[in-house]
Amino acid sequence: MKILILNGPNLNLLGEREPSIYGEISLESLIKYMNKSAQALGVEIYHFQSNNEGALIDQIHEARRDTHGIIFNPGAFSHYSYALRDAVSSVNLPVIEVHISNISAREPFRHLSVIAPVCLGQISGLGLEGYGLALDFLVKHLTNPSTD
Amino acid sequence: MKILILNGPNLNLLGEREPSIYGEISLESLIKYMNKSAQALGVEIYHFQSNNEGALIDQIHEARRDTHGIIFNPGAFSHYSYALRDAVSSVNLPVIEVHISNISAREPFRHLSVIAPVCLGQISGLGLEGYGLALDFLVKHLTNPSTD
Amino acid sequence: MKILILNGPNLNLLGEREPSIYGEISLESLIKYMNKSAQALGVEIYHFQSNNEGALIDQIHEARRDTHGIIFNPGAFSHYSYALRDAVSSVNLPVIEVHISNISAREPFRHLSVIAPVCLGQISGLGLEGYGLALDFLVKHLTNPSTD
Amino acid sequence: MKILILNGPNLNLLGEREPSIYGEISLESLIKYMNKSAQALGVEIYHFQSNNEGALIDQIHEARRDTHGIIFNPGAFSHYSYALRDAVSSVNLPVIEVHISNISAREPFRHLSVIAPVCLGQISGLGLEGYGLALDFLVKHLTNPSTD
Amino acid sequence: MKILILNGPNLNLLGEREPSIYGEISLESLIKYMNKSAQALGVEIYHFQSNNEGALIDQIHEARRDTHGIIFNPGAFSHYSYALRDAVSSVNLPVIEVHISNISAREPFRHLSVIAPVCLGQISGLGLEGYGLALDFLVKHLTNPSTD
Amino acid sequence: MKILILNGPNLNLLGEREPSIYGEISLESLIKYMNKSAQALGVEIYHFQSNNEGALIDQIHEARRDTHGIIFNPGAFSHYSYALRDAVSSVNLPVIEVHISNISAREPFRHLSVIAPVCLGQISGLGLEGYGLALDFLVKHLTNPSTD
Amino acid sequence: MKILILNGPNLNLLGEREPSIYGEISLESLIKYMNKSAQALGVEIYHFQSNNEGALIDQIHEARRDTHGIIFNPGAFSHYSYALRDAVSSVNLPVIEVHISNISAREPFRHLSVIAPVCLGQISGLGLEGYGLALDFLVKHLTNPSTD
Amino acid sequence: MKILILNGPNLNLLGEREPSIYGEISLESLIKYMNKSAQALGVEIYHFQSNNEGALIDQIHEARRDTHGIIFNPGAFSHYSYALRDAVSSVNLPVIEVHISNISAREPFRHLSVIAPVCLGQISGLGLEGYGLALDFLVKHLTNPSTD
Amino acid sequence: MKILILNGPNLNLLGEREPSIYGEISLESLIKYMNKSAQALGVEIYHFQSNNEGALIDQIHEARRDTHGIIFNPGAFSHYSYALRDAVSSVNLPVIEVHISNISAREPFRHLSVIAPVCLGQISGLGLEGYGLALDFLVKHLTNPSTD
Amino acid sequence: MKILILNGPNLNLLGEREPSIYGEISLESLIKYMNKSAQALGVEIYHFQSNNEGALIDQIHEARRDTHGIIFNPGAFSHYSYALRDAVSSVNLPVIEVHISNISAREPFRHLSVIAPVCLGQISGLGLEGYGLALDFLVKHLTNPSTD
Amino acid sequence: MKILILNGPNLNLLGEREPSIYGEISLESLIKYMNKSAQALGVEIYHFQSNNEGALIDQIHEARRDTHGIIFNPGAFSHYSYALRDAVSSVNLPVIEVHISNISAREPFRHLSVIAPVCLGQISGLGLEGYGLALDFLVKHLTNPSTD
Amino acid sequence: MKILILNGPNLNLLGEREPSIYGEISLESLIKYMNKSAQALGVEIYHFQSNNEGALIDQIHEARRDTHGIIFNPGAFSHYSYALRDAVSSVNLPVIEVHISNISAREPFRHLSVIAPVCLGQISGLGLEGYGLALDFLVKHLTNPSTD
Repeated sequence: MKILILNGPNLNLLGEREPSIYGEISLESLIKYMNKSAQALGVEIYHFQSNNEGALIDQIHEARRDTHGIIFNPGAFSHYSYALRDAVSSVNLPVIEVHISNISAREPFRHLSVIAPVCLGQISGLGLEGYGLALDFLVKHLTNPSTD
Repeated sequence: MKILILNGPNLNLLGEREPSIYGEISLESLIKYMNKSAQALGVEIYHFQSNNEGALIDQIHEARRDTHGIIFNPGAFSHYSYALRDAVSSVNLPVIEVHISNISAREPFRHLSVIAPVCLGQISGLGLEGYGLALDFLVKHLTNPSTD
Repeated sequence: MKILILNGPNLNLLGEREPSIYGEISLESLIKYMNKSAQALGVEIYHFQSNNEGALIDQIHEARRDTHGIIFNPGAFSHYSYALRDAVSSVNLPVIEVHISNISAREPFRHLSVIAPVCLGQISGLGLEGYGLALDFLVKHLTNPSTD
Repeated sequence: MKILILNGPNLNLLGEREPSIYGEISLESLIKYMNKSAQALGVEIYHFQSNNEGALIDQIHEARRDTHGIIFNPGAFSHYSYALRDAVSSVNLPVIEVHISNISAREPFRHLSVIAPVCLGQISGLGLEGYGLALDFLVKHLTNPSTD
Repeated sequence: MKILILNGPNLNLLGEREPSIYGEISLESLIKYMNKSAQALGVEIYHFQSNNEGALIDQIHEARRDTHGIIFNPGAFSHYSYALRDAVSSVNLPVIEVHISNISAREPFRHLSVIAPVCLGQISGLGLEGYGLALDFLVKHLTNPSTD
Repeated sequence: MKILILNGPNLNLLGEREPSIYGEISLESLIKYMNKSAQALGVEIYHFQSNNEGALIDQIHEARRDTHGIIFNPGAFSHYSYALRDAVSSVNLPVIEVHISNISAREPFRHLSVIAPVCLGQISGLGLEGYGLALDFLVKHLTNPSTD
Repeated sequence: MKILILNGPNLNLLGEREPSIYGEISLESLIKYMNKSAQALGVEIYHFQSNNEGALIDQIHEARRDTHGIIFNPGAFSHYSYALRDAVSSVNLPVIEVHISNISAREPFRHLSVIAPVCLGQISGLGLEGYGLALDFLVKHLTNPSTD
Repeated sequence: MKILILNGPNLNLLGEREPSIYGEISLESLIKYMNKSAQALGVEIYHFQSNNEGALIDQIHEARRDTHGIIFNPGAFSHYSYALRDAVSSVNLPVIEVHISNISAREPFRHLSVIAPVCLGQISGLGLEGYGLALDFLVKHLTNPSTD
Repeated sequence: MKILILNGPNLNLLGEREPSIYGEISLESLIKYMNKSAQALGVEIYHFQSNNEGALIDQIHEARRDTHGIIFNPGAFSHYSYALRDAVSSVNLPVIEVHISNISAREPFRHLSVIAPVCLGQISGLGLEGYGLALDFLVKHLTNPSTD
Repeated sequence: MKILILNGPNLNLLGEREPSIYGEISLESLIKYMNKSAQALGVEIYHFQSNNEGALIDQIHEARRDTHGIIFNPGAFSHYSYALRDAVSSVNLPVIEVHISNISAREPFRHLSVIAPVCLGQISGLGLEGYGLALDFLVKHLTNPSTD
Repeated sequence: MKILILNGPNLNLLGEREPSIYGEISLESLIKYMNKSAQALGVEIYHFQSNNEGALIDQIHEARRDTHGIIFNPGAFSHYSYALRDAVSSVNLPVIEVHISNISAREPFRHLSVIAPVCLGQISGLGLEGYGLALDFLVKHLTNPSTD
Repeated sequence: MKILILNGPNLNLLGEREPSIYGEISLESLIKYMNKSAQALGVEIYHFQSNNEGALIDQIHEARRDTHGIIFNPGAFSHYSYALRDAVSSVNLPVIEVHISNISAREPFRHLSVIAPVCLGQISGLGLEGYGLALDFLVKHLTNPSTD
C-alpha cells in the first residue's frame, strides 16, 4: 500500500510561517513524523510539496499509476483551484483533505473548500496530528473499506 | 480523563436512516465501538444523544464540571444553531466537530457549520471512524497539548 | 391506516393568535373536525402539537413504527429547522406540509420552506380546510399510490 | 357556480413530457377526471390551456365576467410572469395555484412563484389530484367563505 | 402589575461565560438586583431561564394569562428563531428585547434580530443595566402608555 | 459631569413629522423634559440638533474637550454616514445611540446602523423615553463604570 | 408627425383594475384624452394595447416604418422582458417609458425596469397625465431635438 | 400657488460639467426658462441650489410653511441620502423628482433612487424639459388633484 | 433527416438591427445560406421565426412529430424564458443553442442562458456561421451519435 | 495559416477521466483527428497541453509571433483565471473557447467563463467535434473575416 | 503650478484620533511637511479640510478656476459620497486619492472607494508619506504628462 | 539595502499589450528606469517577472533570506491568488502592491485585491511612475520606519 502526502503552497515554510497559526514544527519534522507513523502501520508513503498548482496536478495524475490514496493539504488553493478539484476527481483514488488550522475560524474566504466536495472527507484544525489521523484512516479504509 | 460523545438530532436513527449516506451501523454499535476504543486508550467516555437543542446545550454546560473534552456531531444543528455555538464557546473545553458524511459534498446548506468556528477542529466524511480519530486526537491533545 | 396530524409552534394558540391571519377556529375545533373527517374516511388519526423542535422530531421518529402518513404544519420551523427536515427524510413516510395562511403572501422569510423539499407536497393558504384536503389526498395515495 | 381550469405552457404535453416527473396521465384524461368531479359537486367547469402568456392573461380577464374561481397551473410562468401576477390581481376572483410536481424539490428557480402571493393559496406535489382538491376547496369556499 | 424577566440560552452561565463580553455578575445576582428594582417600583416580577426554545415559547404563551409585559433576552435565538418571533406576536403583550453586549459590535450574524421587529423596542450593549432600564420603561409604559 | 444630547436630521420637526411613527411631542418638549431629568440627576446637559452631517461631526469633535458622554440620535444618518461613525470612534467618549421608533420594524434600510458598532450601546423603539433611559445609564456608567 | 401610444398587459382593465393604485379612468377615456391632446398639438397618434409580449414587439417593429416616436407603458413586462428591450433598441425611434403609478413606491420587483436603459427617458407616478407630458415632450423633441 | 425648484449637488456646474451627459445649458438659463414657464402658468416659483445635504433638508423644511409643491433634482444624493428621503416624507407636499439624464442608462449605482419612493413621481432622461413638464404637472395637480 | 432552424424575437430584423453587433446580413440571406448548406449535406431543413414565446413553444412541440433536431437562437428569451426551457426538455430532440454575438462579452444579463442547460450544447459569437456549424454537428450527431 | 490547439488542465487524461462526461476518446486521438482535419483544410496546426496556468500564458504569448488563431479549451481555468483572460486580450489573435461538455448543464461554478468575454466566441457541449467546428470557423474567418 | 491638498472628515483630529491606525503626527505637521516639499519642488500648494461634504464639493468646484491638480483624502466619504465623485468628474483636473491607512486591511466597508474610479489613481497605506508621493507624481505628471 | 521588483503575469508584454491602458513603455525600459532610480537612492534592486503563480511564490519565499522589501505588481493574480497572499504574509517583509492602471476604473473583478490586505499599502493608476514612488517610499520606510 502506497500513500502520497501532498502539500500545497507555502507549506514549505511550515514552522517559520505565522507560527501562532501553524505551530512551530517544520515540514521536515512533519515528514519524519509521518515516515515513522507509516513504518509503524507497515505502509509506504512518499512526500511532495509545491507552490505550483500545475505541479500539484501533475503529481495527482502520476499518483493514479501506483498509489492507493492521497493525503492532501492544498493550502490556499483549497479556496479557488477548480483545476485541482478536477484533478482529484479525474483519478480514482481516495483523497483526504487536511488543514493544519481550523479554516472555519479564520477569514471568510477560507471557510469553503472547492476541493472538499470531491474528496472522501476533510480534517481541519487538528494541527500536524491531522495528517497522522488521515493516514490511520486511509490505511483502515483501503484494507477494509466496508467498515467505514 | 473523561470525554463526552455528544450526538445531535436524528442520529438515534443511525443505521436505519438513509443508509446510502450514513452507512448501516447503528448508534448502539457506534457506542460499543467507542467504548472499546476508550478502554484501549485508558480514558473514560460517556454518551448522550438528543433531538432537542436545549438538551444538548444543557449537556454541554454540565460537561464543564468534570469532563475534559467533547466529540460533537451536531447533525443538522451545525447549520443554524447559534445557541449551540454559544454553548460551546461558553465552556472551556476542547470540542471536535464530527460529521459522518462529507458535508461539503451534499446540499449547499450543509457546507457551512456555524459551530465549527468555536471548535478546535472538524472531521467530516470519514464515517463512524471519524469519532475514533477524534478520540485519538483528544486523548493526545489533553495529555500533551503542546505537541499538536 | 393511521395518520398523524402534527402541529408545530404557536399552533396551540389557534383561534386566539392573530385571528386576521389564522382565522378564529381553535386547535380543539380543528381536531374535532379532523376526527370527524377521518371517521368518514374510515381511517385512524391522532394529534400531536408541540412548541418544541425536539419533541416534534421524536414524534416523527415514533411515527415510523405504526403510522402510514403525516400531515405536518411545522409553523415557523418550516423556514429554518433543517433538523426537522432530516427527521422527515429519515422516516419512510409520505408527509404533506400544510400551512393555514398563504406563506407566499407574507414576510419574505416565510416564502421558502426548508422542509418542503423532502415532503410529498405542500398545501398553503387554504385555511383549516388544507388539513382536510391533505387527509383526503393521503388516504387516496396510501390506498392506491399509482393513480396520483 | 362556474370554475375555470387554466393550464399554462407545456401542460398540453402532459403524460408524454418527462413522465418521471409529471406521471403518465394526459391532459385529456385530466379534463375528463375534472369534468366528472365537477359533475359530482354540481358545479360547471371549463378548460383552457395555452403556451402563450398573453392568451392566458386574456382568459383570466374574460373570466371576471361570469366565472367564480380559477384553478391555475401556470407551469414555468410561475417563476417570472409578473404580467400574469398582475392579471390575477386585476380580477376579483379566488385563484388557487396548482403544481403537479413538488416545485420545492426541483431546481432552485422553481422554488418561488411570483404568482402565488396574489392567489388564495397553493397546492404542489400532489399530482393531478391537486386539481381535484383545489376544486373541492373552491366549491366549499364559494358556498360558505366564512368557514375556511 | 406583573412582569416576566425571560432569559434564553446560555444566560444561566452568566458571570462564568466569556466574562470579557458579558461581565462577571451571575444570573443569580441579576435576579436579586431586578427583584430589588421591582420592589422599589412596586411591581411584581418573576424569572424564567431556559436553553430550550420550546420552553421559552411555552413561557411566553403562559404569560398572556396574567402578565403585563416581558423583558426578553433571547440570546442567540434572536438571530434565527422565527418560532419565538411568532410566539411574541401571538400574545398581546409589550415585549422589550434586551442584550447585555452591543450586538452590533460583534460577529455579523448577531447584527440582526428576527425577534426585534415584533417587540416594542430593543436595548443592547448597556450590560445588566439594560434589564433595569427596560423595567423602568415597562412600568411607565403600562402605567401611562400615552406619554411614551 | 456634562452630557451632550445630539439630534440628527429631521428631528427638528419632531411632533409635526409623521406623528404616527414619532409621536406628537416636539423637540422643544423633549429638551425641557431632558433638562428636568438632568437637574434631578444633578448633571449638566446641553442640546444640539442639525440637519447637516458636517455640523454633527464638528459638534462631536468639540465634545471631546469638556463633555463626558453623548446621547446621539443620528436619524437617517445611522444607515450610511461612515463619517459620523469615524467621528464617534475618533473621540474617547461613551456614546449611546437612541432611536425613537423601533428601527427593526420599519424599512429594511433602517435595520442596520453603521454607527452602532462604535457606540457603547443602542436603545430603539422606546419613544422619547429612550433619551431619559440613556441619560440614567450614562450617569451611572460615568459615576461607576465597573458595575455595568 | 406620428406617435404610437403603446400599452402593455392588463392596461385594458384600466379604471376597473385596482382603482386605488391606477385611478378610475378607463383606457377608453385615456385614448380620448390623448386624441384631444394630439389634435391640439397638431400631431397624429394611434393606439395599441396588448397582453401579448410578441404582439407588442411586432407593433414596435412595425412602427419603424412610418412612426416618429413611441410612448410606451410596458406594464409588468418592464421588469423582465429583455425581448421588448431588444425590440426598442432594434428600431431607431425615441421611446418614452410611462408608468401610471410610482413604481419606486411599490413591490421591490417593480423598482427596476429592464426596458428603461434603452429608452430616452421615463415618467412614473404622474397618473394618466404622464402620457400627456410624454406627448408634449416627444413633439418638442422631434420638432427641435437640440433644445432638450 | 408657490413652487420650489430645488437642485442638488454639482448642478451649479450645469452647462459646464460633462456636457455630453447634461447638455450645454447653464443653471442660469434653466432658471430663466422656468421663470418664464411659471409666468405663463401664472404661478410663483423660486430656486435653490446647494451642494450641501443639510442645506437642502433645511430648504425642504422651510418649504412646508408657504410652498405648495417641490420639483427636486437631488443629483447624486438620490442614491444614498436617506436623510433627504426623510425630509421629503416629513413635509406634506407633493414632490416630483427630476433627473436630466436617463439614470437607468448610466452606472448601476444610479439606477435606484432612495428618495423616489416618497415622492409623487419621477421624470428622468428628458433633459431640462423634465423640469418644465414637472411644473405643468404640479400646477394641474394642485389645481385639481382628483383628475390625475 | 429533418432539422428545424428556429429563430426568436427580433431576429426578423437581422441585418437592419444594430448592425455593429449582429452584422449586415438579413434573415432572408441566412435562410438562403442555410438552405444551400442543407442541400449540400443532403438534409431537409425548415425555418420558423417568431417574436412570440408561445408560438416558439408550439413550434418546438410540433417538431417532436417528424423533426430530428433543432438549431435554436432564442434571442433575449435565452435569459428568462423558463417556459421555453421546459418546451425543449419536453421533447426528445437534440437542440443546439446558437447566438450570433458573443453573449459573454455583452451586458451581464446576457451572460447566462436558462435554456442552455437542457440543450446539447451552445455556440456563441461566431456570427451567422454559428448556424452552419450547428447544422454540420447535428447531421454528424444524428448520423453517428457515438462518435461525438 | 497556423493555428494553435491549446488544452488546459486535466485534458491530458481525456478518455480516461470521467468518461461519462468527457467520452472515451484520448487526447492523442483528438490530436490525430485535428491533424487530419487541418490537412484537409490546408492549414498548419500545432498542439500544446499543460496543467500549468503559467505555461499556458507563455504559450499564448509565444503564439503572437507566428500563429493566426487559437482554439482554446481552458478546462477549469475558464472559471477563475483572470491571468489567462489577460493573456488572451494581450495578443491580437482570434481565440475560440471550446468545452467538450455542456458547461451550462454542470455545477454552477462552471456556468460562467471569465475568459469568454475576450474571445471571439465559444462552443460548448459538442464533444470533441467542437474543436473541429472551431477550426472550420477559424479558417473561414481568417480567410475572409468580412463574411462572418 | 498650484495644487490643492484636500482633507475630508475627521482628518482635523489627525495625531489625536486612533493613533494606532493613523500615527501621531498632527494635521498641522502634515501641512508644514507638505509646504516644505512644495517649496522644494517649486510649486504652490494650499490646504483645505472640512467635515462637511458640501464644503468639500464647493472647494473642488472652486479649484477648477486656477488649480492644476488635487491631492484628496476623502476620509470615510470615499465609501459612499457619490456627490463627491460627481464633483471630481465635473472638473477637468487630475485628482489623486490618498489614504493614510491601508483601507484594504480594515473593515469591509472601507475596501471600495466610490470616488477612486474618477480619479487618476490612488495611494493607500503609506502613511503621511502618501501625500508627498502624490505631490511628486502630480508635479511630474503636470510638467510632462506623456511620460507616465 | 536590497529590494525586489516583482512583476506578475502578462507584464512581460508591457509596451506591446493594450497600450491604451498600460502605455507604450516596455518592461525593459521600466527595468532601466528603476535601476537608475535605485542607483540614485543608493540601494540595490533586482527584477523578477513570471507568468507562473508558483514561481512568484518561490521568489517571495527566497526574498526572505536577504531582501528588505518588495515592490509587487501581481497583475491579474491580485484578484484571486490567495496562495500569493499567503506567500506575502508568510515572509516578514514590507510589500507595496503597485498597479500601472487605475484598477478601480476598470472591470468590477479588478476592484478588489486579495493581496492588498497583507501588504503595507497600494499604489494604483500612476503608471510606471508608481514603481518609482514605491521605491522612494520603501527606502525611506526601511531607513526610518518611525516617521511614516
